[in-house]
This record gives sequence, structure tokens and C-alpha cells, in this order.
Amino acid sequence: MKALVYHGPGKRAWEETPKPVLKAETDAIVRITKTTICGTDLHIMKGDVPTVTPDRILGHEGIGVVAEVGKAVSNFHAGARVLISCITSCGKCDYCKKGLYSHCEHGGWVLGNTINGTQAEYVRIPFADTSLYHIPDRTDGEALVMLSDIFPTGFECGVLNGQVKPGDTVAIVGAGPIGLATLLTAQFYSPSEIIMIDLDENRLAVSQKFGATKVVNSSDGKAVEKVMALTKNKGVDVAIEAVGIPATFDICQTIVTAGGHIANVGVHGKSVELRLEKLWAHNITLTTRLVDTVTTPLLLKTVASGRLQPKQLITHRFRLSEIMKAYDTFGNAAQERALKVILVNE
Amino acid sequence: MKALVYHGPGKRAWEETPKPVLKAETDAIVRITKTTICGTDLHIMKGDVPTVTPDRILGHEGIGVVAEVGKAVSNFHAGARVLISCITSCGKCDYCKKGLYSHCEHGGWVLGNTINGTQAEYVRIPFADTSLYHIPDRTDGEALVMLSDIFPTGFECGVLNGQVKPGDTVAIVGAGPIGLATLLTAQFYSPSEIIMIDLDENRLAVSQKFGATKVVNSSDGKAVEKVMALTKNKGVDVAIEAVGIPATFDICQTIVTAGGHIANVGVHGKSVELRLEKLWAHNITLTTRLVDTVTTPLLLKTVASGRLQPKQLITHRFRLSEIMKAYDTFGNAAQERALKVILVNE
Amino acid sequence: MKALVYHGPGKRAWEETPKPVLKAETDAIVRITKTTICGTDLHIMKGDVPTVTPDRILGHEGIGVVAEVGKAVSNFHAGARVLISCITSCGKCDYCKKGLYSHCEHGGWVLGNTINGTQAEYVRIPFADTSLYHIPDRTDGEALVMLSDIFPTGFECGVLNGQVKPGDTVAIVGAGPIGLATLLTAQFYSPSEIIMIDLDENRLAVSQKFGATKVVNSSDGKAVEKVMALTKNKGVDVAIEAVGIPATFDICQTIVTAGGHIANVGVHGKSVELRLEKLWAHNITLTTRLVDTVTTPLLLKTVASGRLQPKQLITHRFRLSEIMKAYDTFGNAAQERALKVILVNE
Amino acid sequence: MKALVYHGPGKRAWEETPKPVLKAETDAIVRITKTTICGTDLHIMKGDVPTVTPDRILGHEGIGVVAEVGKAVSNFHAGARVLISCITSCGKCDYCKKGLYSHCEHGGWVLGNTINGTQAEYVRIPFADTSLYHIPDRTDGEALVMLSDIFPTGFECGVLNGQVKPGDTVAIVGAGPIGLATLLTAQFYSPSEIIMIDLDENRLAVSQKFGATKVVNSSDGKAVEKVMALTKNKGVDVAIEAVGIPATFDICQTIVTAGGHIANVGVHGKSVELRLEKLWAHNITLTTRLVDTVTTPLLLKTVASGRLQPKQLITHRFRLSEIMKAYDTFGNAAQERALKVILVNE
Repeated sequence: MKALVYHGPGKRAWEETPKPVLKAETDAIVRITKTTICGTDLHIMKGDVPTVTPDRILGHEGIGVVAEVGKAVSNFHAGARVLISCITSCGKCDYCKKGLYSHCEHGGWVLGNTINGTQAEYVRIPFADTSLYHIPDRTDGEALVMLSDIFPTGFECGVLNGQVKPGDTVAIVGAGPIGLATLLTAQFYSPSEIIMIDLDENRLAVSQKFGATKVVNSSDGKAVEKVMALTKNKGVDVAIEAVGIPATFDICQTIVTAGGHIANVGVHGKSVELRLEKLWAHNITLTTRLVDTVTTPLLLKTVASGRLQPKQLITHRFRLSEIMKAYDTFGNAAQERALKVILVNE
Repeated sequence: MKALVYHGPGKRAWEETPKPVLKAETDAIVRITKTTICGTDLHIMKGDVPTVTPDRILGHEGIGVVAEVGKAVSNFHAGARVLISCITSCGKCDYCKKGLYSHCEHGGWVLGNTINGTQAEYVRIPFADTSLYHIPDRTDGEALVMLSDIFPTGFECGVLNGQVKPGDTVAIVGAGPIGLATLLTAQFYSPSEIIMIDLDENRLAVSQKFGATKVVNSSDGKAVEKVMALTKNKGVDVAIEAVGIPATFDICQTIVTAGGHIANVGVHGKSVELRLEKLWAHNITLTTRLVDTVTTPLLLKTVASGRLQPKQLITHRFRLSEIMKAYDTFGNAAQERALKVILVNE
Repeated sequence: MKALVYHGPGKRAWEETPKPVLKAETDAIVRITKTTICGTDLHIMKGDVPTVTPDRILGHEGIGVVAEVGKAVSNFHAGARVLISCITSCGKCDYCKKGLYSHCEHGGWVLGNTINGTQAEYVRIPFADTSLYHIPDRTDGEALVMLSDIFPTGFECGVLNGQVKPGDTVAIVGAGPIGLATLLTAQFYSPSEIIMIDLDENRLAVSQKFGATKVVNSSDGKAVEKVMALTKNKGVDVAIEAVGIPATFDICQTIVTAGGHIANVGVHGKSVELRLEKLWAHNITLTTRLVDTVTTPLLLKTVASGRLQPKQLITHRFRLSEIMKAYDTFGNAAQERALKVILVNE
Repeated sequence: MKALVYHGPGKRAWEETPKPVLKAETDAIVRITKTTICGTDLHIMKGDVPTVTPDRILGHEGIGVVAEVGKAVSNFHAGARVLISCITSCGKCDYCKKGLYSHCEHGGWVLGNTINGTQAEYVRIPFADTSLYHIPDRTDGEALVMLSDIFPTGFECGVLNGQVKPGDTVAIVGAGPIGLATLLTAQFYSPSEIIMIDLDENRLAVSQKFGATKVVNSSDGKAVEKVMALTKNKGVDVAIEAVGIPATFDICQTIVTAGGHIANVGVHGKSVELRLEKLWAHNITLTTRLVDTVTTPLLLKTVASGRLQPKQLITHRFRLSEIMKAYDTFGNAAQERALKVILVNE
């Protein structure tokens, strides 16, 4: 089969590789019908993710059709249309029993990381019964590719951890795909204000279309002052960090109101300065989270009911065989005005 | 009347001052029968708390007898024995309605800070109806002085925010009065292990008497290694910071397990380094809190039932008129083996 | 002044009565600008509410302008536009401190019940600081009259107690004003399905306009079968009882799924049969609640942001002086297609 | 092998039956070392549980040693000492993912009910990975037999659902084994008062030994009056029903305070009258639950730490081969002063 293979920093190829085979009774082989590229894949390509070694097939998102299952798989049979979760869960370890799938002792984020991933014609999915989801009839497949990773991430790490509630004022720092997924799912809880903060005017315009009530361009370094002005100096109930650098974290800790929440979604490469000399008496809650994908069933229901429209995030479509070009486009997101790309293999 | 008056950094005196009078219809005047000295008072004496200006009477803890009430006070009458909360709550502002008394728009921590406090023969208590508590019959007054501040602080900021639950492994960094109050109230929730960490062997010995299942002397800088060894390298479910410096915060963020809680209790004077490059994917919750004293009624019940024995923390007793000497003793806590001192005015 | 006075079962009059005066330092006198009639007022008129004695001015909803305040009132001054809560809260008793205003030791539901109410030109509001709310600028007054009682009731007793969450299937039995307020506020949490059940086709049509995804006419006694068919025999996650009779309660307990919630909103005059022989193993949660109005600030924010449109419920408008006629209209709601009536005194 | 076989109402025999064999890749065969008899087994013997058909081996509690595992079992190997949960959980269905193991689509309460149980020398355990628990080293086996059913039941259905918290007043109606397990685990949360209500003086005496602060003999039909007197007419914060008949349920709904909780633990054979005419405005929460055994890992930790001493409940010990006699003893519990019996097969 063909797959997108990582050959070390800066090197990738769409090339022939062996088709995966069942290794354990709990495995399934899935033929990919649609997949996508994640910001994390770009980090991998830069060599920033040391767990990814050369010759790895990338990708941790997608939908497909089950081709074959191991003997212990009971929820799925060949021919089933499935959504692949970016998090693999054994369903049996202490972490999985607590819903902390991200820290599964035998899984977690492994696809396109420590084992081969979904940017291929076929993928092997370990613990298929607890790592795949049936696709409801009449549900648009493209929308569901967004449920492999970015929507559970925005929803769990940002919205649920941030405890967004009706009437709240919410700020989201970062209007990339994850920030926008956070914006869309934050609306499940009817906050009064959602202030979107980013450097890119196009993304801020998209944010407004997606439901942001206010937008702040932070390129002048005055995001904090602007948010404080917009909130009559009270600050926000929930500040969601969806970038992953010290400067954006600092905005969050500065604009959060007493009793408020800071929910970190971004992937951070270095430490941040936490202003405990002010925050110790500010009664705040700060959370971090690698997505668990425990809310995938809930999100599937909101898509089925039409409440959530994940497809809005898709800006570009390619054939899977054009994935090299798709990487180029996605890698140049600002100029291409790219949010999420869909790769089709049908 | 006589009172302990702050006259600027390093200067205090037990001296004659005017007896307080009612200023608002919601005030009460309370004759102090027992009070104590807080670690915060020592900070004030060093000049570390800029909101405290010269000529202020210090003290934010104590019990007494109501001498006089304003016309709008309905819960208390002259002669009532009362517990004074360190936090003054108007009961009417948005923060108070949410139980965030610490951020009350008209109160919060004001006693012995922005208005005169309890280290005096009489004190004026604003918003008496919502800032005083009736003392149940047959309850020991000394025990209750501990409920003005340190027990609600340890319980709310440490135990409740840390979400201690049965079977948990808890670490408390700092075995001073607040850390010990945290240790005692953590046991309300039946954790399996409570590891107490401090530099002082005497305080660690006290911790063991108070219910710590393990103690770690951190004076060799190896607290993290020791805790990881004690927990078979899993770390702790709840790490409670009860000191207020970067080094102790760092212990907490290093020993907390995936999915765990860091509850900050300590008063911090400077920023700390938050290791988001590790923690972003560690699914932790970090909380800060200035005590709200919303749990005072609950704590009163646990004292009345004998479940909580706050008196254990009292190591020294003085007459109120000996308060200058009491400050010296308390200011030299390690050598004097002092935890809490009681000042009696009866 | 003029007021609507109850003179015993079946007897009411719009008549001259003494204007109320301040009785306590915490009182306010409010000039009513808009009020309404509640289903409970009709029950009172039938003699069903024994706490209401002859010569009582009815009414527990409304907005107005503060005319005068007692000395201990600090949140409001003469001239302030205010929303009157149907629940009076002293803000000082144990119940109020826990947010259980409905059981306030000195308040609770007293207006138009044990003291004179809002269907008058003026009303005395005890504990004004904690029983009135400022009306935000540019907010429509009619909408806010709906926030005195029915919206907090539907939201607190139905939606919050029912723990409605994104993706849920919710059934609401009873499409009267309270049921409709429940329907509107349930949407704060983005359930996938809201099934509205009633006997009246007009109210079901209104329900669909207000966001119900399915409606069930229960006049043939087959509501249960219909709901089970609509849910593929799984039942509903949340069943909300908004009528108050055994038959509608029975629908709720029969359609709730394992692990689901029954939230009672209705006022019941007699006992119901609880099928514990089935439910003991069904892992359900059943709640009851007299509204506390703790969510009034939250609801005000959702109205200000435009997320909630309470005005939709208003079908008829009268001058306050026409209240006798308004009672007739509201008392004949089905035929008049009446939901809520507004009485204007401006 | 030998097993206790049900042959229809009133008929049981300790007889030779075929040793169980693996049927699915997820099964394990466990050699029973210790088991017990449950009150439910007595109900089965009376013919009250129609799902139990003749020739069924009874029993759903016990510990043992794994003899053999299916190919898909990865958490356990032959030779492992294990605790058997009374609830079988597939770990893969929607209910299991939500922690509602009691309603597992492929499991739930099946042992000694719809499939053969643990009162035998060997038992087949379906979904072994998610239905067995490793026994920690140096843990007393007898204590752990109590964790198969009665301790999770008392803790989950009574204590957790009742939301017992520090300072609470709790009443438990029924001092049988489950009621006593509830009493012991309620103390995890440090309530101020636990009032135990029963007809049997011996069980009330045991209750006092186990931590009840008050006991009420209800044989005179005056339990309600007595509880109200003990609580100064306030009633209890949490009322736990651990019997399963209308009269005991009625005590609970009458003594619960406003804002309180009724947690049903008892197995009910008929409906009860729910006094909604009073309770609709009483802000109560009523829960029902078939035990999920989600707290087994937590309970294991509390036993390992010595916080929980389940062994106290054991009053009689027999060899497994004497089980016919053990049934007689347990069936005559009041006279024999029997709580739990242990059957040993070592």
C-alpha cells in the first residue's frame, strides 16, 4: 500500500510500504477513506517530537472502513464505517477505568507517533473495541474526521476543563484549528461573550463567523489592555490557552478574573512564569490536559443532531495520493488561509 | 482600651488606644476573650504587607462576647459568644453570593489589615451578621480561635481545592500551623497516605502524632526523590503547597501524578516557574485561593462532634497583656517549638 | 394606591388600599411598572393555598422603580430600576448561605402569599439588598418580568437539577409557561433532542417554534409508548415534570433511561406512586425543588447577551388597572391561547 | 467439582457438577478460596428472583486463584490471587464507558443469577480483565470477600449517592450487613452524627461498636419521632434506605431535611408512596442504584491502608463443603446473630 512516511527531520515521502497486519487479538485493520494533517505533524516534521523515529507512517486522525478484526474484537466487524480516535485506549488499565485514556498504560497517543498512523491506505488500530467509534448513518464523513482529535481536544481541554457556563465571559487565545474547535464547542454552554485573540486577521474574521462576540488582534502586544477594556476591567471568567508559548499563557493569567479558570490546551515546549505573587489570592483554577477523547460519543451526538458543524473548519480538499502537496499547503497555513485539509481515499 | 499597635516595620507596642465604636448599622463591637498571632502578622511586622499602615491594631483571629450591635444586625445581640472570621463578608455583593467571601467588594481580609484588628480588648466587626458565628454551648473556646483562619485556610485552600478523597496519596509541603491544619482536615476524607514534608524534625514529629503516615525531611534537597520512592514512582494524587516559595512549589509540580491536583495554600512573594513543557500533557489541576471561610459552619460541626481537635495546635498560652512577649516567642517558632499561641483576656 | 386584593376563594377586587411603608431598615418600597399573573395565583383564587388569607394583595413577579429604602439598604437607592425576585432572601441565615433561598428562615416565597405582593402600584420588599436585582441598561423590561419566577424555576428545578448536557435526550412533560421556560433554558446546554409532551395542540405548536425537536400529544394516554418509539426504546436521559399530577409524574418515571434524571418542577397536591420495584436498580436521580432564584444573575446575563429571549412567552398585554380582565383571560388560558400576560403601570 | 446448586424454590444441594471451562477469549476460570452467602441468595431460594432458573450454581462474591485465562485476557495470569466483583463488566459498551457497570450490555449482575456463580470450587468469570481485581500482597482475604458486593453497595448506593460530607447528620435505616457496610464507609467522610435505625437490639449494639453515634429501635413504630427529637426537629441531611420495604422508605422521606438526600440501597419488591405534596418544595435529591463496583479500586486502597476493616462483619466461618449448614445459619440470622459468614476452600 501507499503511505506518508517520515524519514527524519524535513524528510517525508508518499511511498509503497507493507500493508499492516493484525498483531493482537484486540487489533483491527482499517482501510482509510478520509484523513487529515494536524499541526502536530508539522512539529514532527521539524524533528520536535523525539518519540517519532524515522520510517514511521504519520497521522492520528481519520475515518475508514474496517477491513479485518482480531478474535477478541466484538464491537466491530469487517465492513463497519468507523471513526478513529487519536487516542488509543486499552479499556482495562487503571487510567482507562478513570477515563484518563490519554495516559492509558498500553495506548494513549501512539498512532503516527510510536506506531504507524492514518496517513496511509490502511492502518492497524490496537484495542479496536475501545479506540474506534461507529459512524452513525447519514452522517457526513468529512465532519467526523474533525472528531478524531481537534474537537475532543478543544472541548475537553478547553471548554470542559474551563467549566464554561451560561452567561460567562470566555477568552480564547489562538484562533487556529484547535482554538476554533474550542470556540464552536464553547457555545454548547451559552456563554455571553467569547473573545477571540490572535495575530491573524483572517482567522479573526473566521472566528466572528463561527460565533466569537469580540475579536482582539494581539499583534501590537496590547491584548491584555484590550480584553480588560472589553470587560470593564473585570477580566474573563474563563481564559483558554490554545497556542502553547509563554506570551499567550501570560495573557491568560493576566486577564482571568478572581474565581476564574485558565484552561491550557496548547502544547508547550518550555516553562512559563506563573505569577503566584498575584494569583495565590486570586482563587483561580488552572488545568492542563492531553485529550482523553472520552467525549467522542457526546460529540457524535451533537454532530448527528446538527448542533455542531465541524465541517466549517475544512478549507482544502485533496486526494490522499496528493498528500505531499497537502502538507505544503497546510505548512503554509497563513498564506493559504488553511484551517483543516481533508485527504480523500475513496 | 489596650491594643497591639503596629508603628511601622519592626515597631509594635501594647498601648492605650480609643475603644472602637459602631460606624454602620451592620457593625458589632466585640470584647475579645481569646486571640492569637498569625504568621501573617510577622510578615506585617517586617513591612511586607503594604496595605497595613502605621497605627493599625493587628490581628484577624479570635473569639469574644458581643458588646453592642448596630440596628441592622439581627443574628447577634449583646452578650452572645462569637467566633470572629478572618474574612469579613457583606453577604450582598456578587462575590459573596457566589461564596467567594475572600473577594467581597466591601470586606475580604480587612481586620488587622486595612481596619483595626483583634489583638485588642475590643474590636469593631463590620457586617457582623455575616462575619461572626455563634459559639455552640460547651465548645472549648481555645479550639475555636483556630477556626478564625488556619483551619478554614487549610481545609478550603488545601483539602477541598485539592479534592482529597478516600484512598488517595496526599503530600503536604510545609508542616507549620497551616500545613498541620491541612493535615488534620485532610483526614476528613480518609486518604490512604499523607506524606508530610518539612525541614524541621520537631514539626515532622508533630505531624506523625497528628496523623501523617510518612514524613520526609527535605533539608537535603531530596524531597522529590524520597516521595517518588515512597510512592513506587507513581507520585501523589494531591500535592499541597503550604510554604509559599518557588522551591516548595517546584516539589509539588514534580511529584504530582497524571490526573492529580496541586493545591496552593502558601502566600507567595514572587513568581514560580511552571513546567508546562511537561505538565501540558499531565492532566493536572492547579488551584490558588485566599480562604473564603465558607466552611466555618461545617468546621464548627466537626469540632462540636469531636471529629476535629484544633486545640492540638496550641503550644503556648499568655495573657493578652503579655502579647509583646508572645510575639517574641512566636517569632522564634523553631527554637520555641511554637505552633499556635493563645492570648487570653478573661 | 390601587391593588388586586384577594377576599377569599373566588373573590378578588382591584381596589384602593394603603400604600406600603418601610417596616424594617432592610426594606425597600418599589413602585411597580410591570407585573404579571402566575398559575399559582389561580390556585390561590381557588382557595388551594391556605397560607394566603383574605385581604392579601397577590402577585410575586414584576419590575419597578425603587421609591424609598431603609437605612440598612446599600445596594439600591431611590430611582433604581429593579427586578423583583419571587423569593425573598435574608442573605444571613444558614439556608441563604447555602444558596437555598427558597427555605430562607425569614423569607422564601412570601410575596403575595404571607405578605402583600406585586399586583399593586407599590410593594414593600423585605431584605431588599438580597431580593432585588438591578436592571441592566437597555434591557427590555417585559422580558425581565419573566425572570421573577418562571425562568429561574424552569432553569433551576428543571434544567440544572436535571443535569441536562450536550447530546442528551430530554423530555419535558407540560408545555405551560413553566414548561416552556424549561424548554428555552434547556437549550443553554445543547441537548440533541427535546421532546415536549402536552395535551394542547397550540402549546405543542408553540413548543416547536421555541426549539422542541419532537412533540407528543398525550391526550390519547399513549405518551410513554410514543416517547419510547422516538428514542428507539432507550428512553430519555432527563425527564422533567412540569405539571404536578400523578399521571404526568408516572410518564417521567417510565420513560427515564438507566442512569437518567427525573427533575420535578410541578406543584403537587397529592402523593404519587414511585415504582421502586423497577427503579431501585435503574440508577436514577430524582430531584424536587422550590426555586431558589440563585441563578437570577446568570439569567440576567443571558438576556443581556440576547441568548435568552423570554419575551416570546408573552401573549397578552393589559394596563395594570385592567387586571380583573387580565385574570379572566389568563384563567381561560387554553381558549385564549394565553401563556404569560403583562400588566403595565407606566 | 462440588457446588451449591439451586433446584427451584426451597431446594438446594451441595453436589458434584462439571468444572467450568473457558467459553470466550476474555474468560478466566478461578478456583474459589473463600466465598460467602448474600441476603439475595436467600431471596433466590424463596423463588423471588425469576431470572435464576433451576440447576444454577449460586453465589456472586468471593476471592480465589486464577486457574486459566482466555487468550485475550492480559491483566491476569494463572496463579494470580483475585477478588471477584459481583458485577461483570465488558469494559466496552456505552454503559461501561460511563462507569455504569451495573447496566453493562453483556454483563451486570450475572454471577449466580443468569450464569453459574461462586459457591463452588471453580467459577468461570466473563470479561475477566474488567471484572476481577488483583489482591494486594499481605491483605487479608476474608476482608476482601466483603468487597465483592456489600462494601461497594453500601458505599456507592448509600454513601456516595447520599453525598455524605463532613459535619452531616446521617440516618441509616436497616442495620443488616449492607446497612453496616454503609455505616462503616460513611465514616470515610466524617459526618458528625450517624443514626442507625433497626428493629433488632443486637444489630443496634453492633452499630454502636461500628461507629453509630445514635441508635433508634423502630419496633414501636416511632422511628420518625425519635429521629426528629434527636435532630432538634431539623431532620437529617442524608437518609439512607437499606431495607427495601415501603415502611422504611417512608421513614426516610419523612426525616430528610430541606436540601437533603435520600439514597436508596434496599431491593424493593413493590412500589412506595412518594409524598410529593410535601417534597415538591423540599429541595431533596432521591437516588437509586444497583451497585456498579466502580469504587472497588478505591475500597481496596482503604483496606490496604487499614482505614476500612471489613472483617468486622464476619460472624461465622465454615468450610465450603459445609455450605448447606452455613445457609441454615445465615437464613436464621437474627437468632444466630449472624452478619456475614465465610466459606473457606483452602
